[in-house]
Amino acid sequence: MAFYVQKYGGTSVGSAERIKNVARRVARFHADNHQIVVVVSAMSGETNRLIALAKEIQNNPDPRELDVMVSTGEQVSIALLAMALKALNVKAKSYTGPQVKILTDSAHTKARILNIDADKILADLNDGYVVIVAGFQGMDQYGSITTLGRGGSDTTGVALAAALHADECQIYTDVDGIYTTDPRVVPEARRLNSITFEEMLEMASLGSKVLQIRSVEFAGKYKVKLRVLSSFEDEGPGTLITFEENENMEQAVISGIAFNKDEAKITVLGVPDHPGIAYQILGPVADAGIDVDMIIQNVGHDDLTDFSFTVHRNDFDNTIRIIKEKIQPHIGARDVIGGDKIAKVSIVGVGMRSHAGIASKMFRILAEEGINIQMITTSEIKVSVVVDEKYMELAVRVLHKAFDLEQAL
Amino acid sequence: MAFYVQKYGGTSVGSAERIKNVARRVARFHADNHQIVVVVSAMSGETNRLIALAKEIQNNPDPRELDVMVSTGEQVSIALLAMALKALNVKAKSYTGPQVKILTDSAHTKARILNIDADKILADLNDGYVVIVAGFQGMDQYGSITTLGRGGSDTTGVALAAALHADECQIYTDVDGIYTTDPRVVPEARRLNSITFEEMLEMASLGSKVLQIRSVEFAGKYKVKLRVLSSFEDEGPGTLITFEENENMEQAVISGIAFNKDEAKITVLGVPDHPGIAYQILGPVADAGIDVDMIIQNVGHDDLTDFSFTVHRNDFDNTIRIIKEKIQPHIGARDVIGGDKIAKVSIVGVGMRSHAGIASKMFRILAEEGINIQMITTSEIKVSVVVDEKYMELAVRVLHKAFDLEQAL
Repeated sequence: MAFYVQKYGGTSVGSAERIKNVARRVARFHADNHQIVVVVSAMSGETNRLIALAKEIQNNPDPRELDVMVSTGEQVSIALLAMALKALNVKAKSYTGPQVKILTDSAHTKARILNIDADKILADLNDGYVVIVAGFQGMDQYGSITTLGRGGSDTTGVALAAALHADECQIYTDVDGIYTTDPRVVPEARRLNSITFEEMLEMASLGSKVLQIRSVEFAGKYKVKLRVLSSFEDEGPGTLITFEENENMEQAVISGIAFNKDEAKITVLGVPDHPGIAYQILGPVADAGIDVDMIIQNVGHDDLTDFSFTVHRNDFDNTIRIIKEKIQPHIGARDVIGGDKIAKVSIVGVGMRSHAGIASKMFRILAEEGINIQMITTSEIKVSVVVDEKYMELAVRVLHKAFDLEQAL
Repeated sequence: MAFYVQKYGGTSVGSAERIKNVARRVARFHADNHQIVVVVSAMSGETNRLIALAKEIQNNPDPRELDVMVSTGEQVSIALLAMALKALNVKAKSYTGPQVKILTDSAHTKARILNIDADKILADLNDGYVVIVAGFQGMDQYGSITTLGRGGSDTTGVALAAALHADECQIYTDVDGIYTTDPRVVPEARRLNSITFEEMLEMASLGSKVLQIRSVEFAGKYKVKLRVLSSFEDEGPGTLITFEENENMEQAVISGIAFNKDEAKITVLGVPDHPGIAYQILGPVADAGIDVDMIIQNVGHDDLTDFSFTVHRNDFDNTIRIIKEKIQPHIGARDVIGGDKIAKVSIVGVGMRSHAGIASKMFRILAEEGINIQMITTSEIKVSVVVDEKYMELAVRVLHKAFDLEQAL
């Protein structure tokens, strides 16, 4: 007998038929005497429908009221799933976030969970109920409804697993696990049996859309075992996200390749090479609420250097304007150039720590294909390069092959 | 400065545009320094949409879970109205039923309000907020979401007005008040400036759909002044429902004519005329959950009598079957006859108490038109007759004219 928190996303509960499928799966676990807490998202499309309705009233909907409204999406899902379980003669009870006192701060539309009252849920589990909790939502200390932001249902699942000391938090989604890379780009991409939290964080933040990054951070912080599985296929093992490197650890040097076309690069040319210059450039950008991803400053010469960074493509024009108007005149930079036709490709793996030459192998592989590298950053367990966006798929494919990712271990 | 609880029904908040209209009206009251608590229903059609979705999962949806689901309809409305008020720079805050601790019993889908915690609302009013509360919903002592049943938003409005000691509970609807009868049948029907609770109860239960009968009972019990107004037209006075007969009382003998075609009649012929016979006939009918409306037993002769009653048309076949199978053989009745092509027409008015001959005038008017009366019942303030349904509109029109209801007083 084990204790699982299972989270089903919007696609998994996207219709009455799919909700019945989820109920059948949960009922099987319940019949095997496992204790089950289920976290569900809103039916796919519902959150967007509600936001569109809000925008008919107010262009920039009031965040407190938007949370009141959007949280109804998950509330409908929990009731439907409870009904579906009862139709299968499984004892089930649904709860909204506020009902099980998922206490958050008051940052409406992007609140953070502070505490969960486990008593009610544990009492129901002991009485043999499947407990269904609305994902994505909670309440603040004043009793106002809050939401955790997009993808927050994963975070609810992990937070519940931590608070209830569940054996595992199972994230059911429309893929059957974490892959070495996107199978739409590399058909030979292979499902990983396990991946470390650190690797998963790098994969998630680099563009792999399977898990929401905050939920992975949360799971790492509270040592919650996470497993990603398919809600459409029959019980495969999925991918386990572990916090111990040697637990079921595969011996590959790198685990996966992440990539995205979401970014744009900006280079400030001929910047005076003195202390504080990075802050002078990026301070006004951060003040405008623009997130910066890669930051590169090379060794200068003649007291001048070039300073490059990447931002989200949507922020490109705004960032160029800020630099040209607010920064260039002050610091006397020669020019500001940039472009948004770039892609970032990253190889990720904890094995890099103990294997030298991984980065140089990556650069060699790309060079052999004639792919020019525009920017490079590295961390302990990843190497990211920026290339022309037209080479993205090619780069991913040749790297996937060169690092033997298609071989089952 | 006055303190109003205003309730807006589903049609009044049926679209973004209509919600903005409601917000403009509320904003005007707020600008005039009135304190306003607004109760809203779900957008028209939304409750039915949710129930249909539930039925895709479970034919007979679990009542607890149905409440979790259906209550989201009002939750969306309160958020939208709060947004619309904020867009007009009016301070506003929305609350679900559970958030303002509208405590009910646990009779899911038809719960009754037990208590309301006024503190939170009064504190917000004192801070200058318009407070918006979801109608139709509350929570039971276990924290489960409950709903009050169809039309329950009126009850929420009245209960809040009672708990908060508001000056008036204003029910905004798609008509501009209570009429002497349905204007679609009698174009000369006239809006009443006031009507007593007793009259309103008779009118509501007899088929006038403007106010939900439980809310009227509630208002009478807690001495809450109720006013029915139009949410589409500009500020008319509407109809005040008073608990004091002499307060603004019009001097008409009868106030209105109610009518419906919802019923069917059943007559048990040749019943032994002895004590307990009514119970022997109606006991099994009540046990089957069938509501009986009119009940008529005339003086018998030869130790036999005829026993008649009416039920809802939907229950007609079932009732006939119960009587024939379970009752007729036991009591040895000669025959069971009935029909559903009937209509009930009622004249209502507190003035009847002090005016003799009202009933006989009604019968004379109908006789002059050749309308045969099949059944009669009376109470202190109403006389109801059952006639062939094809004469219903004619009966209503001639009575309306004969009792001078089209004359403004």
